Amino acid sequence: VSGRGPIVLLTDFGTVDGYTAEMKGVLVTLCPGVAIVDATHEVPRGDVAAGARALGRYWRRFPPRTIHLCVVDPGVGTARRPLVVESEGRFAVGPDNGLLAPMIRASGSVRAIRTDIAPAQISATFHGRDVFAPAAAYLATGGGVADLGPAVSDAVVPEVAVPVLVGPGQARGTVVAVDRFGNLQTNLPEGWLAGVYAVEVGPHRLPVVRTYGDVRPGEGLALIGSNGYVEIAVRDRSAAQVLDVGEGRAVTLVPAAS
Amino acid sequence: VSGRGPIVLLTDFGTVDGYTAEMKGVLVTLCPGVAIVDATHEVPRGDVAAGARALGRYWRRFPPRTIHLCVVDPGVGTARRPLVVESEGRFAVGPDNGLLAPMIRASGSVRAIRTDIAPAQISATFHGRDVFAPAAAYLATGGGVADLGPAVSDAVVPEVAVPVLVGPGQARGTVVAVDRFGNLQTNLPEGWLAGVYAVEVGPHRLPVVRTYGDVRPGEGLALIGSNGYVEIAVRDRSAAQVLDVGEGRAVTLVPAAS
Amino acid sequence: VSGRGPIVLLTDFGTVDGYTAEMKGVLVTLCPGVAIVDATHEVPRGDVAAGARALGRYWRRFPPRTIHLCVVDPGVGTARRPLVVESEGRFAVGPDNGLLAPMIRASGSVRAIRTDIAPAQISATFHGRDVFAPAAAYLATGGGVADLGPAVSDAVVPEVAVPVLVGPGQARGTVVAVDRFGNLQTNLPEGWLAGVYAVEVGPHRLPVVRTYGDVRPGEGLALIGSNGYVEIAVRDRSAAQVLDVGEGRAVTLVPAAS
Repeated sequence: VSGRGPIVLLTDFGTVDGYTAEMKGVLVTLCPGVAIVDATHEVPRGDVAAGARALGRYWRRFPPRTIHLCVVDPGVGTARRPLVVESEGRFAVGPDNGLLAPMIRASGSVRAIRTDIAPAQISATFHGRDVFAPAAAYLATGGGVADLGPAVSDAVVPEVAVPVLVGPGQARGTVVAVDRFGNLQTNLPEGWLAGVYAVEVGPHRLPVVRTYGDVRPGEGLALIGSNGYVEIAVRDRSAAQVLDVGEGRAVTLVPAAS
Repeated sequence: VSGRGPIVLLTDFGTVDGYTAEMKGVLVTLCPGVAIVDATHEVPRGDVAAGARALGRYWRRFPPRTIHLCVVDPGVGTARRPLVVESEGRFAVGPDNGLLAPMIRASGSVRAIRTDIAPAQISATFHGRDVFAPAAAYLATGGGVADLGPAVSDAVVPEVAVPVLVGPGQARGTVVAVDRFGNLQTNLPEGWLAGVYAVEVGPHRLPVVRTYGDVRPGEGLALIGSNGYVEIAVRDRSAAQVLDVGEGRAVTLVPAAS
Repeated sequence: VSGRGPIVLLTDFGTVDGYTAEMKGVLVTLCPGVAIVDATHEVPRGDVAAGARALGRYWRRFPPRTIHLCVVDPGVGTARRPLVVESEGRFAVGPDNGLLAPMIRASGSVRAIRTDIAPAQISATFHGRDVFAPAAAYLATGGGVADLGPAVSDAVVPEVAVPVLVGPGQARGTVVAVDRFGNLQTNLPEGWLAGVYAVEVGPHRLPVVRTYGDVRPGEGLALIGSNGYVEIAVRDRSAAQVLDVGEGRAVTLVPAAS
């Protein structure tokens, strides 16, 4: 199978230490000509959940045959396994710590990457360079997924906070992320907004609108976010700051009748 | 028209939330093989003027047929129009808020991108992914600019602080930007330095030199900056800090006779 | 000689001012189709030693014919020379201030790039754009190294802290860097760990282990880092913070018998 790629990188390495560049050097060496795309190297160090959230947002936006190379790996050098996932025609390689969960949940098939092939070349502390990048390059050059290692059925897939549909237009969910703009991402799917009058978070009751411009600057609102879930925002401001609300906070959908 | 590209990205998205990666995924999907170049994703959020300054500095350094994809878009979801600009053989897409002003001022032709073509697919909050990236991809694959929408003549082009030439070697201008090194960029064109004895900013009178190395470390100076305008610097230090001068401050060219 | 590349960028420019994008524009213009790879633009401004450390870590990971374009250049506009280096089949261009030292030490041949070819086009303050990027593009398009300028034998190559082997399993070295994860990089080569019982830094005595997972979370350790030198870490924490140790601190290898 040829024509795979690009290889899309997500890490918590930053760029200044040179670790990210080392991984890129391995890729350029092993699969020259394959496009390398930076998703991010600025995941907060060791924050697997933040990395998974970002991956969850973008992995399907890349076309089939894309290889997502993901390394947020605080457990490097422990017994945690290196994984390869195939899901909806895309691939991912990364540690077995929940980072790849968005692609595994989507009925992805999972394998543990063998690291006993060339043990002398694998450092104990930098599997991004020594295991994951070579595995990604192997896939990019048409290598078979099954060659990388045996199927596993017990990969780490963290439970997610599940929203509760109480009744028509009435539901409870959670703030699952705060983005760079201070917008609050919830786990309430857009379909649940039917018949909803307002969204409550903390002491705030916010109108449901179509877009930011439907309220005045500085006013709060709720709308369908670009990922298909309810989002809470304050026009031209940071909702996290103005409303003093962070990750994990309860969010309630209030029906039109109330 | 084929062979367009690369697509050069400027946003205020950062990288960690995954928004930038979503845009790249759209581009890779719609125009595979077209080079994607990161200019920056670190424009301060919502700072349209800073984004425009960066674009103004680099857009002509890229060759004709380049597509500048620019998204600093605090007004997404309001009535502000999405624009496509063609200027000196380069293209730009981005919001109608002044971000593309450097290319519009250079006799660029401007069109408003139609968003009624596939409204069901366009979110209310992420036109970077749903409008601007597809428009850039359309251009990259040879699509005609005129197909994207009707010509407009009233695009937002902010007025810029205009320097005043008082007499030979005598002028007044403004600090228009402070860069990462603390150097002060002014709006005084290099040609006006003829016959100038010194440059004054705040209480400081600085010698006009050819290059940083012409003064001692820690000393202030003025010279022709790499963008063709007068720049104020302190050798091996931050002029902004040492001189306590920021954006908007008045700058005076003092003639040799004074 | 064709087929050179990629061009790998290391700078202290950040991205937001547009300087990095200007360099990329020059490269895209002069050598279209040559891959551009970002190593980092986040070297602390003017920190030549940090830039050299990063380059030292990754330059060999890229294949022969790679061109490393490196610009941390506080001396731009002084008499410091622009250099081109050829080492182990890779190339580098950058200022003569120690930034390229890792490739020069590896028996690299060094030349001073002529800047008198097109002086009218070279700014006094931005050689990254006006000298180094064009030189890199010249190499990428198959240009001969010797054409760029005369060989020099007195390039700036800073002395490095040399570790001392006192006896079997006994040695003294230095913390040479702290990475983003707070891990302490030393200059003690891995081979010296034979017969070593513990590693001491400040008041701390740390066990020598194979990998992070060999101690409990929060405990200190020493191991062979991914660059082949002794590294000091604290599992799941920042060793720099927990041990209160920074760059330049003495590190001692303690023999098994002690």
